[in-house]
Amino acid sequence: MKEIEKLDKDYVLHTYARNYVNFKKGDNATLYDDENKDYIDFTSGIGVTSVGHGNKQVAKRIFDQVSNLTHTSNIYSIEPQALLAKKIKELSKYDVRTFFGNSGAEANEGAIKIARTYGQTAFENKRYKIITLENSFHGRTITTVKATGQSSFHQSKFAPYPEGFSFNAIDDVYNAIDDETVAVMIELVQGEGGILPFPKEKIQELAKFLKDNKILLIVDEVQTGVYRTGEFLASNVYEIEPDIITLAKGLGGGVPIGAVLTTLKDIWSAGDHGSTFGGNYLVTSAGLEVLDILEKEKTSGKLDKTIEYFIEKMNDIYEKNQNIFIANVGLGLMRGLRVKDADTLTNLIKTSFECGVMVLKSGNNTLRFLPALTISKDEIDEGFRRLQKAIDKIA
Amino acid sequence: MKEIEKLDKDYVLHTYARNYVNFKKGDNATLYDDENKDYIDFTSGIGVTSVGHGNKQVAKRIFDQVSNLTHTSNIYSIEPQALLAKKIKELSKYDVRTFFGNSGAEANEGAIKIARTYGQTAFENKRYKIITLENSFHGRTITTVKATGQSSFHQSKFAPYPEGFSFNAIDDVYNAIDDETVAVMIELVQGEGGILPFPKEKIQELAKFLKDNKILLIVDEVQTGVYRTGEFLASNVYEIEPDIITLAKGLGGGVPIGAVLTTLKDIWSAGDHGSTFGGNYLVTSAGLEVLDILEKEKTSGKLDKTIEYFIEKMNDIYEKNQNIFIANVGLGLMRGLRVKDADTLTNLIKTSFECGVMVLKSGNNTLRFLPALTISKDEIDEGFRRLQKAIDKIA
Repeated sequence: MKEIEKLDKDYVLHTYARNYVNFKKGDNATLYDDENKDYIDFTSGIGVTSVGHGNKQVAKRIFDQVSNLTHTSNIYSIEPQALLAKKIKELSKYDVRTFFGNSGAEANEGAIKIARTYGQTAFENKRYKIITLENSFHGRTITTVKATGQSSFHQSKFAPYPEGFSFNAIDDVYNAIDDETVAVMIELVQGEGGILPFPKEKIQELAKFLKDNKILLIVDEVQTGVYRTGEFLASNVYEIEPDIITLAKGLGGGVPIGAVLTTLKDIWSAGDHGSTFGGNYLVTSAGLEVLDILEKEKTSGKLDKTIEYFIEKMNDIYEKNQNIFIANVGLGLMRGLRVKDADTLTNLIKTSFECGVMVLKSGNNTLRFLPALTISKDEIDEGFRRLQKAIDKIA
Repeated sequence: MKEIEKLDKDYVLHTYARNYVNFKKGDNATLYDDENKDYIDFTSGIGVTSVGHGNKQVAKRIFDQVSNLTHTSNIYSIEPQALLAKKIKELSKYDVRTFFGNSGAEANEGAIKIARTYGQTAFENKRYKIITLENSFHGRTITTVKATGQSSFHQSKFAPYPEGFSFNAIDDVYNAIDDETVAVMIELVQGEGGILPFPKEKIQELAKFLKDNKILLIVDEVQTGVYRTGEFLASNVYEIEPDIITLAKGLGGGVPIGAVLTTLKDIWSAGDHGSTFGGNYLVTSAGLEVLDILEKEKTSGKLDKTIEYFIEKMNDIYEKNQNIFIANVGLGLMRGLRVKDADTLTNLIKTSFECGVMVLKSGNNTLRFLPALTISKDEIDEGFRRLQKAIDKIA
């Protein structure tokens, strides 16, 4: 047994099916292990290291910040927090205010609390029910586990869960709504349940129906947000106007941060919600630097070119390997190749890693790609070359 | 209106009753605002900046880490995570494994999920009820709000909450236990509900009763942990053996981190729980550096001397101002002075800030002190001098 495996198994509570590699260094979309073997990283820590590993600009910003001031309580104003909230509003193009927590789960908890507050105040009867979509994923707190639209997550050992959550296929949401429904919570491209982008018309139709019926639309952009799908928000791509949006993964470039944006700008007053760490100097300074880098990637046209090139290479590998791939899906740099069966997928991910390219599983049979948004052409080329090598090996 | 106030009010969702100071720099227990006015910080971001503001050693460690590698997914092993889990086990002296999340709330969610898992598997009937204590605080997720033993937190606008939580006075816990009770969750020194340290005998008696009856003892050490009360854990001070312990605030020195430790080392298997950011390279490297600093403070005798000196100065100010203080309470560097009434307390906190010393409110009438564990004698002296000035002003 490798030393790191023993260490991990002895001291860390077992909840992950780990690959016992020991990474020591990263450089953009390339990682190096303790034997200096390099890997092209098509996962970016599940969409987190949006500006790449070892980003010098972010590292410098973080160092400057923590050398001065890492954290104070939210009872004092925190300038970079206000500036990040301003930046998020501007980039989103929605008229929102933002609350900061520490993760996607915490952001979604905030979204649910906002929706329920609206449900208590905006109607004659109390509305509290939230409908989510099948195959969705919303987090690991007891409430967000229940909001997750996959029965396998609703393990009886964590029960009882809070009432008021049900999940449906998108076409069945209309019938599921009753006069206690306050919100519908969706991902625009489902990330954990397989890479599943919804058709734009379907989403726009749902958004319009909800608006007409004063039911809130919550869009969980924990994975799709922060330029992952090509625009700042997937909601921008789908041209909808959600009432509540949640962000997390890519926002801090690896620093733990979650955010809930809402157009219900006066829904709460002091004491209604809070966080000790949320929005502190460290995390919001990192977030500002990340957004600064990504905004430039976007406005310079570089991000669009990267996406175009990545898709081109994905199309090539898809066309070339029709024996194992059955569909080519995705939006922006959130992409998937459906594999003919689950065993082949498991085998392919393992063999790819041996060949030096990191890819993810999503749902039962999707090979998931979430590369850094700053991935270089060379890294893309090399990553797909190694992936082809892995495919050839298992063929 | 100050610029920062406008910025904050325009873009940040209103949930905090802010003091619109604009801090720019920190140095140990001293903060500097945008006009270079200095403040002695007796709050440490509510017990978070345990090794002081602008700690150069932690800043360097963070910079070295993020220059190389900030984050990968937990599907790959993360060496500093395993090392931090090892360090926590060693310092705690308990035979535990650790799971990492991003906050105290997430740590407590983990604790509740562990307890309920135990409740489903260890008994003939399903046990799921968790009893907490009145005046407790356990977090801001929907479930941890319900676990919080203060009715004012259980706002109907966030309902429905999950079933299975009730709160009691510590002496009434025994009668509240029924055959569906799986755990009792307590803080040893309540931080948010007033600084309320429980008598050691009472806690030991409860711990023994629970052990005899196979009911889990969860100790929420989010605020008391990481040397705050003089030992690594308050549980060490109380000489008890909890089944589950949660940590957060002081563990990362300002980096968002939460941890749940449990002696139920094999309670879970892969997929039962998880976190995207939790335990990543950045936060666990910071945690390792923080623990390294604090362990040395403790073993060198410096921390004990700091505590002794702080208590001495608190006793002085308490004795000298019997007209406004009615009790002098606390453990280690988690301390409180009960003020005769809530209005005087509010006025004192405000005036103290004007005089250049930061103190906190806890419960209705407690002036709370949570200084950095590395606070210097000079900072202690100057802080209490300023506090006396504030007392004289409002007298």
